[in-house]
Amino acid sequence: MANDIPDIVIGRLPVYLRALRRLAQDGEKATTSSQELGERLGISSAQIRKDLSHFGEFGKQGTGYHIDYLIEQLRHILHLDVEWPVVLVGAGFLGHALASYGGFHRRGFRIVWIFDNDPEKIGVKMGGILVQPVEELEDTVRAEKARVAILAVPASAAQEITDILVEAGVQSILTYAPISLVVPENVQVQYSDPVVQLQRMTYYLHP
Amino acid sequence: MANDIPDIVIGRLPVYLRALRRLAQDGEKATTSSQELGERLGISSAQIRKDLSHFGEFGKQGTGYHIDYLIEQLRHILHLDVEWPVVLVGAGFLGHALASYGGFHRRGFRIVWIFDNDPEKIGVKMGGILVQPVEELEDTVRAEKARVAILAVPASAAQEITDILVEAGVQSILTYAPISLVVPENVQVQYSDPVVQLQRMTYYLHP
Repeated sequence: MANDIPDIVIGRLPVYLRALRRLAQDGEKATTSSQELGERLGISSAQIRKDLSHFGEFGKQGTGYHIDYLIEQLRHILHLDVEWPVVLVGAGFLGHALASYGGFHRRGFRIVWIFDNDPEKIGVKMGGILVQPVEELEDTVRAEKARVAILAVPASAAQEITDILVEAGVQSILTYAPISLVVPENVQVQYSDPVVQLQRMTYYLHP
Repeated sequence: MANDIPDIVIGRLPVYLRALRRLAQDGEKATTSSQELGERLGISSAQIRKDLSHFGEFGKQGTGYHIDYLIEQLRHILHLDVEWPVVLVGAGFLGHALASYGGFHRRGFRIVWIFDNDPEKIGVKMGGILVQPVEELEDTVRAEKARVAILAVPASAAQEITDILVEAGVQSILTYAPISLVVPENVQVQYSDPVVQLQRMTYYLHP
């Protein structure tokens, strides 16, 4: 079944999960509806119901979705009932910000290793983690069976590091470098690019 | 017409633009096709043709899209034929990384002002720009008519800064703080959240 579901649907599930967690944190009520979620997210309620229906029946006509239950189901679907150890490559300003980011906690990920090639950064602690020399990247990823990586390196180094990560067994890469990465078909890449997010907003502005 | 186009379509245009720019930089040929773009982006060619058809006829059956022409058209649609001055709030590690980011250049945006409340950062230059005291944020945004802002502040400060920005006339906000912002309907917000991007990839991993 999994292979039949469009990636664009998969991409919306974490957004639903985030909205549900906020509702749970508000703690005002135990249930929500596709209408309420839709209004919060700017997505039609029909789209939300259709997306969720790929995975089963999560709500009841009239009573809506039980928030905690739907959170658990989405976590299970997205394989977030384990905590994925993450390898971070790049200990510059961005790497430092990521190592200190509070948003990973209890959302399925923990940065466990940080690598850099700068002798001044190696041995320094960032977010409580010791920065290791990039020469040890491949062996560590292989030995620890890391599957998830974040790239916070300059564009000029991104493909080389990607090749090492993929060779060592990484299958999910979130990259901040402004270049397109070449990876085998079984490896997922997500690009974090502030300009792409800014550009979709200026459509609504009138110069 | 603009109001009829779903935001999700608008959101894909910058992704097409980025792919087209890469094709242009490769410089191997003058035209591309919805098939080629689709393969590069993991989006169906039918979706790409449908998205672009909202805005006119950009390609010809058999010859495809002229890359430079389509780039210009997308830049025009997204209001990127001007360069938007951007106000950055937050001069921590993330702010510093953004101020130094090379990816804004020639893509429609330039960080022009940086604000922080930390006396140790005020007066320091980041990416060539002087960090100013946050007390001057509102007056500067109003006087300079800034419309686009990036928030790189802690979650605890994000809503307060947002209120100041909106009051002063900002209409597009890209935020890195892991909280949901409350804004009026005429203000766009984009959330940059590494966890949401990581979560959509673990769907494809098997723990």
